[in-house]
Amino acid sequence: MKFTVSKNDLYQSLQKVSKVTPVRSTLPILSCILVTAEDGELRFRSTDLEITMETFCKADVEENGSIAIPGRMILDITSELPETELTIRVKNESIEIKTPQGGEYRITGRSSAEFPGVPLIDDSTTILFSPEKLQRMIEKTIFSVSHDEMKAALNGVLFQFRENSLRGVATDGHKLVQLTYENFENNTLERDVIIPVKFLNVCMANIKNIEEVRFKVGKNHVMLETEESVIYTRIIEERFPDYESVIPVKNPNKVLVDIDAFLSAIKRIAIFSNKNTHQIALTFNENKVVISTEDVETASTAKEELSLSYEGEPLTIGYNAEYLKEAIRHIDGEKAKIFLNTPLSAGLFYPEEQVENENLLILLMPIRL
Amino acid sequence: MKFTVSKNDLYQSLQKVSKVTPVRSTLPILSCILVTAEDGELRFRSTDLEITMETFCKADVEENGSIAIPGRMILDITSELPETELTIRVKNESIEIKTPQGGEYRITGRSSAEFPGVPLIDDSTTILFSPEKLQRMIEKTIFSVSHDEMKAALNGVLFQFRENSLRGVATDGHKLVQLTYENFENNTLERDVIIPVKFLNVCMANIKNIEEVRFKVGKNHVMLETEESVIYTRIIEERFPDYESVIPVKNPNKVLVDIDAFLSAIKRIAIFSNKNTHQIALTFNENKVVISTEDVETASTAKEELSLSYEGEPLTIGYNAEYLKEAIRHIDGEKAKIFLNTPLSAGLFYPEEQVENENLLILLMPIRL
Repeated sequence: MKFTVSKNDLYQSLQKVSKVTPVRSTLPILSCILVTAEDGELRFRSTDLEITMETFCKADVEENGSIAIPGRMILDITSELPETELTIRVKNESIEIKTPQGGEYRITGRSSAEFPGVPLIDDSTTILFSPEKLQRMIEKTIFSVSHDEMKAALNGVLFQFRENSLRGVATDGHKLVQLTYENFENNTLERDVIIPVKFLNVCMANIKNIEEVRFKVGKNHVMLETEESVIYTRIIEERFPDYESVIPVKNPNKVLVDIDAFLSAIKRIAIFSNKNTHQIALTFNENKVVISTEDVETASTAKEELSLSYEGEPLTIGYNAEYLKEAIRHIDGEKAKIFLNTPLSAGLFYPEEQVENENLLILLMPIRL
Repeated sequence: MKFTVSKNDLYQSLQKVSKVTPVRSTLPILSCILVTAEDGELRFRSTDLEITMETFCKADVEENGSIAIPGRMILDITSELPETELTIRVKNESIEIKTPQGGEYRITGRSSAEFPGVPLIDDSTTILFSPEKLQRMIEKTIFSVSHDEMKAALNGVLFQFRENSLRGVATDGHKLVQLTYENFENNTLERDVIIPVKFLNVCMANIKNIEEVRFKVGKNHVMLETEESVIYTRIIEERFPDYESVIPVKNPNKVLVDIDAFLSAIKRIAIFSNKNTHQIALTFNENKVVISTEDVETASTAKEELSLSYEGEPLTIGYNAEYLKEAIRHIDGEKAKIFLNTPLSAGLFYPEEQVENENLLILLMPIRL
């Protein structure tokens, strides 16, 4: 195996796939990046066994071949070298890197046969995405994904593919977000898949400055394909809870509030809340809210008043300030519409005006005061 | 105690002194900042018992007084508030903060009587510094300070005040740096003091954009005074080792090398060195050096050649690459002068041209190949 490649091309490709390489692993082969030289192209592959990523770059390939190269070491040396042509020759597992300036580096790799294969995406359906729409779907839902490993079904975002629509749903039991794209073209699939959060994070990092994204949904795997890379993941094979039954149909008390002012007041009050519960209280009255907290442990209290539009009965409701901040931060536009019922029932948060062909809803459970 | 203060003034003062507040401490009072209101001024004090820092700002003081305020909480709330006038009233240990916008925050402080006093600087001599000279002295020496708590004498920089000169020395046993200022005015003191590294770090952060620095050396303490703040520290009461006897008088082999090229080659070779020893070898020969390494654990080797000026016998010498990088990084200018003797004796590193009235020397011990 022998090839010559521009340092910058090599470095960019290594950087991309290295994001999937596990930081620590009991399987040493996973700390390597598989490099395959064939027909004027280098292909790079990394995996943590759940997610697999591939990318490619042009190279002057003199002799085809494949080798697993220690990821950290090859990244470090390409990062420290100035732009130059690198000639890499592999014999058995010995890798020799030479620069025209006379630098000579030798490291030991592992046989490509040791490296895990790519998942088989069978019976797949392809869905075309604009990168912006996929980016937005992930950004709006990912903050509600549960990190509790005991709740496997909630460790990803539920993608509900329907004819001409797509809905993303994520919940951790305290908050729930649901974003629906109506008139979502190029889709003939009718299926629910739960997609792991790590895969979605890797996707986000790899769809910037991209023209088009192809999303392939197979039996057990999902694959994202762009002109620059391919990313695979296993689907979470669990039943997502029946979230629709949790969303209240009628919340009679209606709030319309300026997002920036509301958020910064909550941030200040939250400083004085209990460090474990983060509990704050919102007391709504005609056209104002009093945001307050009290922490008996540190004997601190805080109170602010904010003007807003409120239609409904006087109401005091408790929230975890951290969740409330996150919910409001994910509402677009200048104002948020909030629908409340009783101090113990779920509140619904919407943007004042939905984006065309879109429906964004965030649900937040209160805490008992 | 009652005063009104601009949020920005308060925030800036709190930020400054909070750098000394210990992150964790068994003494809860140390997590507080002492605030004293008197005669149109607020004074702020923080301490970790080794270092004490004071700063001040203007305020509209209605009633004098003093209170220890939980540092994290008062910093967080002032950071989140927009610029505004804050009115703070203290009764017993209850602190009430009010904004003109109707915000009301109450926290519980601690009695000012609990807060440690400032050290007594008796029989002190004052030395005037330009902030740039102090900054440079600290930057050039601090990287050689030992972090081994068993070697208390080496946990600071030795300041040797002499008539018309000042020398700073730091060593950790592997490397040593010595920076001498000749014609150093305003100094009548003849004394050696070891100044703790944490104090020097705090000083560096507080002498930017400052006109003049007064350095007061007392019996057991040193104090740095600027127009904005005062910082105290205990002197390390240990005997600094007789470092001068370690510096070789005659190293016959002379190297003159471009710093950037040398440093980047060492960085690349270091990637392939053993992760514990960081051992690399320099082989000097007429007008070139070969930098190489070999790690049997990972079966990796690396080699680069670099042109330089070398006068002396052919010589191969081993270094810890991390120490070598640090030494070279601290040499000013384009080229470094290096004087070597045998593979086992100390090497001396100088800038090609010394700054006027200055003498910078870095000594580095080799490692046995």
